[in-house]
Amino acid sequence: MTPQDPDFERRCRDSFARQAVMATLGIGLVEVGAGRVVVAMAHRSDLTQQHGFVHAGIVSTALDTACGYAAFTLMPADASVLTIEFKVNLLAPARGPSMVFEATVTKPGRTISVVDARAFQSGPGDAERKLFATMTATIMTIVGRADVRQ
Amino acid sequence: MTPQDPDFERRCRDSFARQAVMATLGIGLVEVGAGRVVVAMAHRSDLTQQHGFVHAGIVSTALDTACGYAAFTLMPADASVLTIEFKVNLLAPARGPSMVFEATVTKPGRTISVVDARAFQSGPGDAERKLFATMTATIMTIVGRADVRQ
Amino acid sequence: MTPQDPDFERRCRDSFARQAVMATLGIGLVEVGAGRVVVAMAHRSDLTQQHGFVHAGIVSTALDTACGYAAFTLMPADASVLTIEFKVNLLAPARGPSMVFEATVTKPGRTISVVDARAFQSGPGDAERKLFATMTATIMTIVGRADVRQ
Amino acid sequence: MTPQDPDFERRCRDSFARQAVMATLGIGLVEVGAGRVVVAMAHRSDLTQQHGFVHAGIVSTALDTACGYAAFTLMPADASVLTIEFKVNLLAPARGPSMVFEATVTKPGRTISVVDARAFQSGPGDAERKLFATMTATIMTIVGRADVRQ
Repeated sequence: MTPQDPDFERRCRDSFARQAVMATLGIGLVEVGAGRVVVAMAHRSDLTQQHGFVHAGIVSTALDTACGYAAFTLMPADASVLTIEFKVNLLAPARGPSMVFEATVTKPGRTISVVDARAFQSGPGDAERKLFATMTATIMTIVGRADVRQ
Repeated sequence: MTPQDPDFERRCRDSFARQAVMATLGIGLVEVGAGRVVVAMAHRSDLTQQHGFVHAGIVSTALDTACGYAAFTLMPADASVLTIEFKVNLLAPARGPSMVFEATVTKPGRTISVVDARAFQSGPGDAERKLFATMTATIMTIVGRADVRQ
Repeated sequence: MTPQDPDFERRCRDSFARQAVMATLGIGLVEVGAGRVVVAMAHRSDLTQQHGFVHAGIVSTALDTACGYAAFTLMPADASVLTIEFKVNLLAPARGPSMVFEATVTKPGRTISVVDARAFQSGPGDAERKLFATMTATIMTIVGRADVRQ
Repeated sequence: MTPQDPDFERRCRDSFARQAVMATLGIGLVEVGAGRVVVAMAHRSDLTQQHGFVHAGIVSTALDTACGYAAFTLMPADASVLTIEFKVNLLAPARGPSMVFEATVTKPGRTISVVDARAFQSGPGDAERKLFATMTATIMTIVGRADVRQ
């Protein structure tokens, strides 16, 4: 997938840095490629549900962020990004301690893009990381709306 | 809808109180009825995305919590609740300042329940609150698994 | 919800009549209102899955059609309608024999509309009809694309 | 993924043959592997919507069938399969003329399995097939319910 804006990585990183919630939740930007973004976070006890796992909504926050920015990498320089809808499947409890969220654009589009993402977790003794959640997100390219500009 | 456990409200409130993430995000339990749960939160600048709106994932956290507990009110006393999947539609930016999330069980089931929820926001000058997000969640009743007990 | 085109009902009925698959499956247009469309069909043994129930995909065909036309009633006269995505929850087997699918626009939009629909079934001896499936659909307004014109 | 029933392919093919709707729509079973099923169909003018493309609901019928049987290949011999919910993204119009639907189990489970599927189309002059729809389906294993037995 070819980016329309060669400066897409800087644009993504700048926008990500303006998301206050990322700092609040400890979600970091790991990788920014054309049509692909990876973010990561650690299990934190103040983000858990009643069983001690990270809440599905927090997992969704990381997945949606990865999806939105993956689509954003392929948008024109003056565009901003808006999530219209997403669906999450929670395959296993979010135990962590380390969690990675990988999003890839399945179908880029002028107005609508579809992005799929997967969440993996691993611990110190784990031979391999394990898939624990998936997302499909529908993302919209917004041009010329002052209230949602990057 | 008739609850199987007459003590469902206390059970819900106790479980909600054990969700550390609710305190972290400032989500409060407003109403617990048989098959219906309402939670609320305020816009907070440390929970925003790049445009200053509350992040879609945080909105999902509140909606999913309302959905899960709505299903939980109809479960047996020894059950715990697990979200299998959900879909969110984001209809408008989450500006707040005040946000309410209402979930109602659409189809209770022994193993699988389907719950629908709506998010409304309103400000000081608003004549009426406005719908800004919807969720459909598929919730599972878990019995006898120690790791996900309430 | 106020239609932009006062002639929306005729426009819907004309478009529906051009859907060859509706005749093939025996799906009929029951009601066309501003932001609300109802279609109906009967259980037919040549549309069943392995247990003798109407296939979930056929149920989805009726639900999606109702959703698309519900959004279409609120679109400008020169627009055409495109389903971007939908989610279906199957609450009970589609036994019929009579099935009704009701769609209502939850959020109309210039580009994107969100529509919710419910499927009900009833038999000769039934005191009341029963909910057996729900859909949330994201619908796009298309203007000026020759290949998808009405 | 290891099947619990070594005879899974015959069991799938027998069940598929009992789906009357498959013959009605011309959907054929192309491939049955452990955790993976492929079905195919051709564009047919009696299955089209108002623009001459195959209706999204018919596309969903093929995708859901592939997903359900992909999960079914990993179930015990006495189980039957039930779709709880699915989400479809429609990436491009279903022009055909030849369409293939590939489903792979993302997460097998004792009770709940999650399956992802992709729909591809190609024509006589096409150098390569094109992705036009995706599905994520949540599938349930049913044991001991006479009404939904295989």
